[in-house]
Amino acid sequence: MAQSTEGVRAIALAAKAAATKLATTTTDERNGALAAMARALRARSADIVSANAQDMERERAGGMKESLLDRLMLDEARIEAMAAALEDLVGLPDPIGIVQQQHTLYNGIELKRVSVPLGVVAMVYEARPNVTADAAGICIKTGNAVVLRGGSAAIHSNNVISDVLLEAAVASGMPEGCIAAIKTTDRSATDELMSLRGIVDVLIPRGGAGLINRCVEKSKVPVIETGTGNCHVYVEATADFDSARAILINSKCRRPGVCNTAETLLVDAAVAEDFLSLAMADLAERGVAMYADAAALAIAQAQGIAGVEEATEKDWETEYLAMEIAVRCVAGVEEAVAHINTYGTKHSEAIVTADESAAAAFCAAVDAAAVYVNASTAFTDGGQFGLGAEIGISTQKLHARGPFALEALTSYKYVLRGSGQVRS
Amino acid sequence: MAQSTEGVRAIALAAKAAATKLATTTTDERNGALAAMARALRARSADIVSANAQDMERERAGGMKESLLDRLMLDEARIEAMAAALEDLVGLPDPIGIVQQQHTLYNGIELKRVSVPLGVVAMVYEARPNVTADAAGICIKTGNAVVLRGGSAAIHSNNVISDVLLEAAVASGMPEGCIAAIKTTDRSATDELMSLRGIVDVLIPRGGAGLINRCVEKSKVPVIETGTGNCHVYVEATADFDSARAILINSKCRRPGVCNTAETLLVDAAVAEDFLSLAMADLAERGVAMYADAAALAIAQAQGIAGVEEATEKDWETEYLAMEIAVRCVAGVEEAVAHINTYGTKHSEAIVTADESAAAAFCAAVDAAAVYVNASTAFTDGGQFGLGAEIGISTQKLHARGPFALEALTSYKYVLRGSGQVRS
Repeated sequence: MAQSTEGVRAIALAAKAAATKLATTTTDERNGALAAMARALRARSADIVSANAQDMERERAGGMKESLLDRLMLDEARIEAMAAALEDLVGLPDPIGIVQQQHTLYNGIELKRVSVPLGVVAMVYEARPNVTADAAGICIKTGNAVVLRGGSAAIHSNNVISDVLLEAAVASGMPEGCIAAIKTTDRSATDELMSLRGIVDVLIPRGGAGLINRCVEKSKVPVIETGTGNCHVYVEATADFDSARAILINSKCRRPGVCNTAETLLVDAAVAEDFLSLAMADLAERGVAMYADAAALAIAQAQGIAGVEEATEKDWETEYLAMEIAVRCVAGVEEAVAHINTYGTKHSEAIVTADESAAAAFCAAVDAAAVYVNASTAFTDGGQFGLGAEIGISTQKLHARGPFALEALTSYKYVLRGSGQVRS
Repeated sequence: MAQSTEGVRAIALAAKAAATKLATTTTDERNGALAAMARALRARSADIVSANAQDMERERAGGMKESLLDRLMLDEARIEAMAAALEDLVGLPDPIGIVQQQHTLYNGIELKRVSVPLGVVAMVYEARPNVTADAAGICIKTGNAVVLRGGSAAIHSNNVISDVLLEAAVASGMPEGCIAAIKTTDRSATDELMSLRGIVDVLIPRGGAGLINRCVEKSKVPVIETGTGNCHVYVEATADFDSARAILINSKCRRPGVCNTAETLLVDAAVAEDFLSLAMADLAERGVAMYADAAALAIAQAQGIAGVEEATEKDWETEYLAMEIAVRCVAGVEEAVAHINTYGTKHSEAIVTADESAAAAFCAAVDAAAVYVNASTAFTDGGQFGLGAEIGISTQKLHARGPFALEALTSYKYVLRGSGQVRS
């Protein structure tokens, strides 16, 4: 596979050269390119739909599940949504060139800390072709070159979309190579991308746990880890039951396949019998399978609630991403926090309580990107948080945490202006 | 080596437990611990000097160079300096608990983004035992637990210092395990530390390029890369020669062994003959060996300047960390920037010029942590930049860039307070 490996390196080097030029573009120039990219998507929608039809046909023949086929599919309406998303970026404030700090040193040197693009962003993702346009748009907005490595199921769609976007960007003054797709489905291309330390500045995987773990474990390029969420709803003894039941059902059932969904219910032992009699019945009614500790299991059995099995250690660790939930009784806030900090993935954690001291203790001690008091975990989302865009949800603590967008694609540099100063 | 590997994991797990408790300590509690740690260093200085004497004796017998022995050596004065540095931290603002963003979502949920400790910081360093106290102090200041992995040459010194600091911290209310040294010299302990993703939140290597590369390449824990600096001084055609000569000599000769020292001189061809006749003579006079491109070599030969050899490609890439420098003539700013962005390590880069447009172009296009106009690269330092402390100088672009200190040991969490909100 020497040829494809060489190809990836060449693409990344061209992106690096483009990044140097992008770093000196103006806000207006980049916004102009985004508007042109949106127009180009609309103008070329027939070509995109046609390329997508090839992907759909091949994957349908290959037995891809309907739910995945739906994520792969592009039609005029979805292309319009991609174009509109690019136009939305135009309206967001430019995060580049912000003077974050400024002071004069003792010796007269003027120091400024100024936000700058990261440089070359590599995006590795699965079969959703809209990510191609989203990622390219967010990178152009922030003055970064982007190397796109989409899933092989969307190869034709991604290749056409990235060509259309690059052409429009270059025609409106962006440098050649600023948007580059890896046009092979060879898996070694991803490995090569992960090895390009010094050329690629950050690698962002979007997809399932397998993809993310592979990137985190193998990449020599810094990674922003996204996505896996083993989230909890903790019902403290003073919780309002109606509110707790609504938050639990929303956190678990709204979209069970997404990362902010709740995977374990923790409940204070003092109210377990009363609360679980109601809550487990709610869950059973909605077809949610339950894996309960001995105390919760006994309550389910006493109440004749169906669909409850005994939990094992593995259940505390599992991100079901399905209509399944683990249930455990705890002695109080401290034990709930200990459970969450042991098994959680630092994503989204909720407490339902009427006790301010319990809420404060939970918020301070739980180690997660988003901590909720009396609200559903389903709100962890860049749009809901008001970021205006979203690249992903970071579950690491360096650089970006929680829903992240434009700011996460910036770094800063110190610019120091003197008049001949030397250090004694 | 199963035993030591198990030991490292156990230490890190204890640090993780400590981190959960540290996250809920107050500013005053942490500052009180720092003051107690300073007092303890002074009170136990005889024990520390005695342990250090064992390290010195063994390393002297083993043939360690005098310059390294000097870095290893501790006496009363150096221990006093370590204690004073801990007390200096007390006076710095607390970076934890800062509300960075705050707004009310459309649905009434109150969102705050609050700075929090990273959690468990692993510090991997070489034979300077003062780093043990510096790192422990900076971590306690920022509410982080620290796992210290010092160089084997300082093993006795580090073990005593970390014991003294931990004892003082715990006696003043910090949790057990908050400061932990790895007390084996077994190299596999570092590998184990680098594998503890999910337990250790960040790994910071301080030392030579070999150590840093090993960590960046092998670590599954996120790394803040520090240190290597292939820095340039670029003398543009309009530069004031006196100023340029002073900046060049200061950037190269002040402390040639540190990372902010200049390793290549770039000079505009238009002024190369006039400038290099003076500057290469300056360098030769100070005993700096030069590796020059053909044009610069011809000037040296015409002027009879000694100690100049022809440069090879390798010279552009080399961080000499010695009284050696590469010299190259360029056509102008664009070529200077291209050279720097090809061979530099994104550390510190200087232009000397009287032309504002050249200065602006250089600052915008050079990809480095610190960019200087008419000042020496020797200023890249946390103290000089006014950070109040320094952990290292980051040459990566994620999370922290350039000299970094307390802020780099923080993350943030979103705290969302509602009244029963669920997402539609």
